[in-house]
Amino acid sequence: MKNKIITLLTDFGTIDPYVSIMKGVILSINPNVNIIDISHNVPKFDIVKGAFILFNSGRYFPEGTIHVIVIDPGVGSERLPILIKTKRYYLIGPDNGVLSLLAYKDGIEKIYTLNNPKYFLDRVSMTFHGRDIFAPVAAHLSMGVNLSEFGNEIQSIKKIDEIYFSNPIIKSECEIIFNIIDIDGFGNIITNISAETILKLIKKLKDNIKKDEKFIYIKVYKGVDFDESKSLSISFPFKRTYDDVKKGEFLALIGSHGNLEFSQNQDNAAKHLKILPGDKLCLKLYGNLTSPKNI
Amino acid sequence: MKNKIITLLTDFGTIDPYVSIMKGVILSINPNVNIIDISHNVPKFDIVKGAFILFNSGRYFPEGTIHVIVIDPGVGSERLPILIKTKRYYLIGPDNGVLSLLAYKDGIEKIYTLNNPKYFLDRVSMTFHGRDIFAPVAAHLSMGVNLSEFGNEIQSIKKIDEIYFSNPIIKSECEIIFNIIDIDGFGNIITNISAETILKLIKKLKDNIKKDEKFIYIKVYKGVDFDESKSLSISFPFKRTYDDVKKGEFLALIGSHGNLEFSQNQDNAAKHLKILPGDKLCLKLYGNLTSPKNI
Amino acid sequence: MKNKIITLLTDFGTIDPYVSIMKGVILSINPNVNIIDISHNVPKFDIVKGAFILFNSGRYFPEGTIHVIVIDPGVGSERLPILIKTKRYYLIGPDNGVLSLLAYKDGIEKIYTLNNPKYFLDRVSMTFHGRDIFAPVAAHLSMGVNLSEFGNEIQSIKKIDEIYFSNPIIKSECEIIFNIIDIDGFGNIITNISAETILKLIKKLKDNIKKDEKFIYIKVYKGVDFDESKSLSISFPFKRTYDDVKKGEFLALIGSHGNLEFSQNQDNAAKHLKILPGDKLCLKLYGNLTSPKNI
Repeated sequence: MKNKIITLLTDFGTIDPYVSIMKGVILSINPNVNIIDISHNVPKFDIVKGAFILFNSGRYFPEGTIHVIVIDPGVGSERLPILIKTKRYYLIGPDNGVLSLLAYKDGIEKIYTLNNPKYFLDRVSMTFHGRDIFAPVAAHLSMGVNLSEFGNEIQSIKKIDEIYFSNPIIKSECEIIFNIIDIDGFGNIITNISAETILKLIKKLKDNIKKDEKFIYIKVYKGVDFDESKSLSISFPFKRTYDDVKKGEFLALIGSHGNLEFSQNQDNAAKHLKILPGDKLCLKLYGNLTSPKNI
Repeated sequence: MKNKIITLLTDFGTIDPYVSIMKGVILSINPNVNIIDISHNVPKFDIVKGAFILFNSGRYFPEGTIHVIVIDPGVGSERLPILIKTKRYYLIGPDNGVLSLLAYKDGIEKIYTLNNPKYFLDRVSMTFHGRDIFAPVAAHLSMGVNLSEFGNEIQSIKKIDEIYFSNPIIKSECEIIFNIIDIDGFGNIITNISAETILKLIKKLKDNIKKDEKFIYIKVYKGVDFDESKSLSISFPFKRTYDDVKKGEFLALIGSHGNLEFSQNQDNAAKHLKILPGDKLCLKLYGNLTSPKNI
Repeated sequence: MKNKIITLLTDFGTIDPYVSIMKGVILSINPNVNIIDISHNVPKFDIVKGAFILFNSGRYFPEGTIHVIVIDPGVGSERLPILIKTKRYYLIGPDNGVLSLLAYKDGIEKIYTLNNPKYFLDRVSMTFHGRDIFAPVAAHLSMGVNLSEFGNEIQSIKKIDEIYFSNPIIKSECEIIFNIIDIDGFGNIITNISAETILKLIKKLKDNIKKDEKFIYIKVYKGVDFDESKSLSISFPFKRTYDDVKKGEFLALIGSHGNLEFSQNQDNAAKHLKILPGDKLCLKLYGNLTSPKNI
């Protein structure tokens, strides 16, 4: 028989005992469950980063996986502890938006507020629902307890900022207004422009530019108004992979999230370009005679 | 059948191969054991912090769990490698105090010095008993080897500094001398004052103050002599949870360890107040007309 | 039946979702495999450090373990994704040298280039072969798929810099030219001088020095020419373990890798001596009348 999987995603860090306390609580209820860490180094209180990590990682797990998320600055306040049954997963955590990206992506089927103390630890603190509510509920769920046992059904959940659900604005075949949805640990700058969108525009552009301008570059502007005084001093050649430019050179490519990314081969593009998650930018595509050196 | 659980707590960090070497040694002896990390980011050589993490986390694990602790600055010296059978657990590590908080909390039943090389790796180094002694002994124990096989029984273990076993001193219904026993990664300042103690004093105080001074504040002094010149410039309103004050404001509350804590909502109180683990402080409780703003 | 073990070693860090994405992919194919982290905090793009960690840790795992290594700055370029069957293990990762130290140590039996897309994820990106190729191949291998199914056999792999395969140069019974092969998180300076080599030389030296000069010291020079002006101002007494000198004092000893190391008791020798991995140095052994104070 397959072991059940419970994943953990928190902002607890890896020095304090909080993560392993949750593991101890879970294993005391179900000693055979397979506990997998997604991350415990989400910047403290960063609900948006947590939502994005859950969205990107959670959907690669097998059907039936129980995802427990504790990024919970409002613990003990009126924010509800909830359990969401999506098409393929169970999401357990606070109703503060951190569950929303994956929940909507996978498709919400049922939402419950966790209000049946039968499945909590005996004493529920005001400051650590990860230990007292989320961990034991996840463990009991992995033992086969019915969803409706955990609390009352509710109809909606809190979402995070619209920016993370929004699409880029296509101004013309070569102009796009877009958002930065994440910066990863390599300094890759991840946009909300899908591969499909950018590849379609590049194809259109190629049909219209001179035959010998076969290399595509992307010029990026800080802000949303294509203001030349705010353009970055480098342009990004559009490439397949990091190693298509020399070490230290910038490039644009379709990253592993399936979105347009700006990167620097074996270096940290975000740091050098001072771009942050949540930034709104705009870009222009153009053809050029020469590759692969930056201009 | 339940899989046996071995937890690991070290100061090895997560770059070097030392932690995974221990996991490889354990799995080579018992491939079916469930290895759970408590933490590997204990500050190097910090026996007190390690003891505190083990104390807080270890007791949430199921009965029969084998806890292996390697914070071992005296490795290879005359300090003994030991195995403690407590009421519910097995603790394996160096006899330098790191095991003592959980051992005394849970109740010591038997102590053995590990001196039977049959259960060690073939060659025992002078510098890495985690690999050569503690990991293989834990793995053999998880396979059902009898405790008395591992070495000779001994009668006592080393304790860490008395401060971590001591109680606060109650000077009057509103004055307490106390210790800081831990600062966590959120900057929460954890005292040795139990919930029971502080709530009893607050109840007494409420009986004696004016009816309209229903909000309780805590004034904290650096040192143990209630010297006004050493009082912190802020007082801490006593609240239920972080979110009961505005973001960035200070508060006092019963934390998840069941002790009085001083915190700052979504910020790092310890950093701003320059308070460290081991500090001895004193405090005064008083009633006030107004809440919830800090004064 | 024994669960199969897959280990993971990457430079992905522990904030981003990349590691847990790989775990999700693996568990979706084989939900019963035991996934063990070796490290995810290898400095980004540091193939040599990754090779060294794999070499040191990987060989402690049980026979049949599948080691997956993703330190892969050339992902998507012409470097091959490969699977190596060594005497005891399976190594999966990019052919950039990161697998070579363990592969040669354990003994290479077969090498395959991974070119059968049947065992990849449906869409293979140009930037994340850890998710798209290495994780699913490892999971299918753990399910019993034959090696020859994954791709074509090839004859050789890329090695890392010769320095990590080279032996020290013995100039005389008391002079050695050697390399620094690693600095660990404690600041221990690990040389390529084996215990066997150094102990043999010390024995010879003891036969030749005056009877009362029974304490052995090691004098270290930056560079390879025994130039007195480049000698370190401290000499290292040769000891059994850290605790044989006072806290903060330097020493030389046989470390847990089985090589000569230079250390500082409860402090960071590498930081204080400004020595780095890859440094080439030389040393002289000599006898002295007194111990254990540094001179």
